[in-house]
Amino acid sequence: MAPVRNARVLFNEAPAPNTYPEPGKATAYDDSQTIDLETVPLNGGFLVKNLVLSIDPYMRGRMREPHVKSYTPPFILGQPITNLAVGRVLRSEHSAIKAGDHVYGYFPFQEYVVFPSPAHLGDVFRVLENKEGLPWSVYVGVGGMPGATAHHAWHEFANAKPGETAFVTAAAGPVGATVVQLAKTAGLKVIASAGSEEKVAFVKSLGADVVFNYKTEDTKAILEREGGIDIYWDNVGGQTLEAALDAAHKFARFIECGMISEYNSAGYAPKNLSLIVGKEIRISGFIVSSLYPKYREEFYKEIPRLVAAGKIKYTEDRSVGLEATGEAILAVQKGTNTGKKVIVVAEE
Amino acid sequence: MAPVRNARVLFNEAPAPNTYPEPGKATAYDDSQTIDLETVPLNGGFLVKNLVLSIDPYMRGRMREPHVKSYTPPFILGQPITNLAVGRVLRSEHSAIKAGDHVYGYFPFQEYVVFPSPAHLGDVFRVLENKEGLPWSVYVGVGGMPGATAHHAWHEFANAKPGETAFVTAAAGPVGATVVQLAKTAGLKVIASAGSEEKVAFVKSLGADVVFNYKTEDTKAILEREGGIDIYWDNVGGQTLEAALDAAHKFARFIECGMISEYNSAGYAPKNLSLIVGKEIRISGFIVSSLYPKYREEFYKEIPRLVAAGKIKYTEDRSVGLEATGEAILAVQKGTNTGKKVIVVAEE
Repeated sequence: MAPVRNARVLFNEAPAPNTYPEPGKATAYDDSQTIDLETVPLNGGFLVKNLVLSIDPYMRGRMREPHVKSYTPPFILGQPITNLAVGRVLRSEHSAIKAGDHVYGYFPFQEYVVFPSPAHLGDVFRVLENKEGLPWSVYVGVGGMPGATAHHAWHEFANAKPGETAFVTAAAGPVGATVVQLAKTAGLKVIASAGSEEKVAFVKSLGADVVFNYKTEDTKAILEREGGIDIYWDNVGGQTLEAALDAAHKFARFIECGMISEYNSAGYAPKNLSLIVGKEIRISGFIVSSLYPKYREEFYKEIPRLVAAGKIKYTEDRSVGLEATGEAILAVQKGTNTGKKVIVVAEE
Repeated sequence: MAPVRNARVLFNEAPAPNTYPEPGKATAYDDSQTIDLETVPLNGGFLVKNLVLSIDPYMRGRMREPHVKSYTPPFILGQPITNLAVGRVLRSEHSAIKAGDHVYGYFPFQEYVVFPSPAHLGDVFRVLENKEGLPWSVYVGVGGMPGATAHHAWHEFANAKPGETAFVTAAAGPVGATVVQLAKTAGLKVIASAGSEEKVAFVKSLGADVVFNYKTEDTKAILEREGGIDIYWDNVGGQTLEAALDAAHKFARFIECGMISEYNSAGYAPKNLSLIVGKEIRISGFIVSSLYPKYREEFYKEIPRLVAAGKIKYTEDRSVGLEATGEAILAVQKGTNTGKKVIVVAEE
């Protein structure tokens, strides 16, 4: 068989701090490479066809100069960016992997990849069973890292008691939407915020009790009107975190999943941190990978089944083709995506 | 016996937010009242002679307009201010209290007080045994609320492992000094800050490894030079909290005891809160009274014994007479006191 195109998305330039990553500038689509799928040497590894790639908010943090420290490794200039993905194994010389397997893990943004071993897919590596026959994209969304983020941290930090009130931000995103549904299942009142009327409608359909558009309504006033909160799921930080501190009840739990309001701008520094003392608030920052060992097997047992049964709902915003990556990353940073953002690289 | 003076310190005027409480203005000394110690009716209660009153940072928060909500009740205008104290019982009609007992609890700032029942001394009420024969003032300092604050929260939140590094602020105060000693006992490296050379010398004498004057040295630079921190005992908030976030290791524990930098001025809002997420920091605000039930008996078994044995050291800054109260409160807010501040009302 003749060589085929093996297009890639390269990290091209670190955006300046507090600016958005411009498509074509921060990243660049490159289709100059080819690969011969039948003859490319595997050297004991396996060849994967990339099916679906995840676009996540945290990727902005990897777009930085290499000397800047952070909790995730920086992307490497001139190399493909990487993120969680599902692919189908085309050929394998590895004993644990066979052709036809669907594998989950960290992929470079390119159409075909030779992995020397499963370890090269990272600590999330998994051969997906998918007995439920879900779309593979589910396994980078509610059935992947974002769903695990919601599930693991909710179980670890929420300490939820029926009748309490949870406030969930970015509630239309794959993490927030899952948290909303876990909180409702736990018998809580759920206040949720999102950034468009369409997103608000989706979050209402998940069963949240009070849903508002934070761009047109006053978060602080709504939290006060609703009588305050016991659990705050923070995806945004800044002024919303300040409003949550104001509205927190005694012994409130703040689950610090992200602070997207600070990723692309100087942000806003909350002025009421001393409330942490008097209200005896517990604040837990976390990165989901720290919680994988404790919760992963439970997660894969529970979540795909609930999704298949329609008991956990999700939305997707699909872009087709690696060329769409730059715009997709920007949309997620600006919140203009309409569901879990994925890049569909190939259908099977 | 003729009536004797029963001087009082009254709450006179709430200082404006973000200003210091001026002696004679926020509080007023009043010696217009008298009491007949032999004939004052007890109605089933008991009469106490006030020996020593505690002056604590949190008292600033009680000096407010009554409509402002906070975690402690406001002082009442025209009435004596109240705080923790030790007194000697002169007469009693109550079955649980006898003349000669020394009682600990919340007293009004006046020389003699009739309490209807022990419950009126608050949830900290205790008849002090003092088998060790310690000065009674110890029981409002390292053997009282400040010592309990250090002891209870350290055991609840520090999760200390030998070889880790703790950073303790306001380390010459009765809370901070006790934390320093608990941390050293637990096998930690201790970095500590205080606000004068005299205080620095005292904290060094407690065994802290690195002690600096935060007024003349750069907290951020020192924490960086020392390789970062695992535990942060926060008494101050603001810029110091920001520096601690910068210096925090992964999974650091922040124990939020107070934020005195914000009590008397607009304060400084830390700009780096998103580090909470990436560093997976646990932040625990607390009020010591929530921890009393769990740790109180252990505390009274351990701490007076360790103090008597010289294994826990403390310093006091004694003012004599209720007239000194206004200046004493101001000194504690400004940090110009040289040890645990107490008002000695009478010697026995």
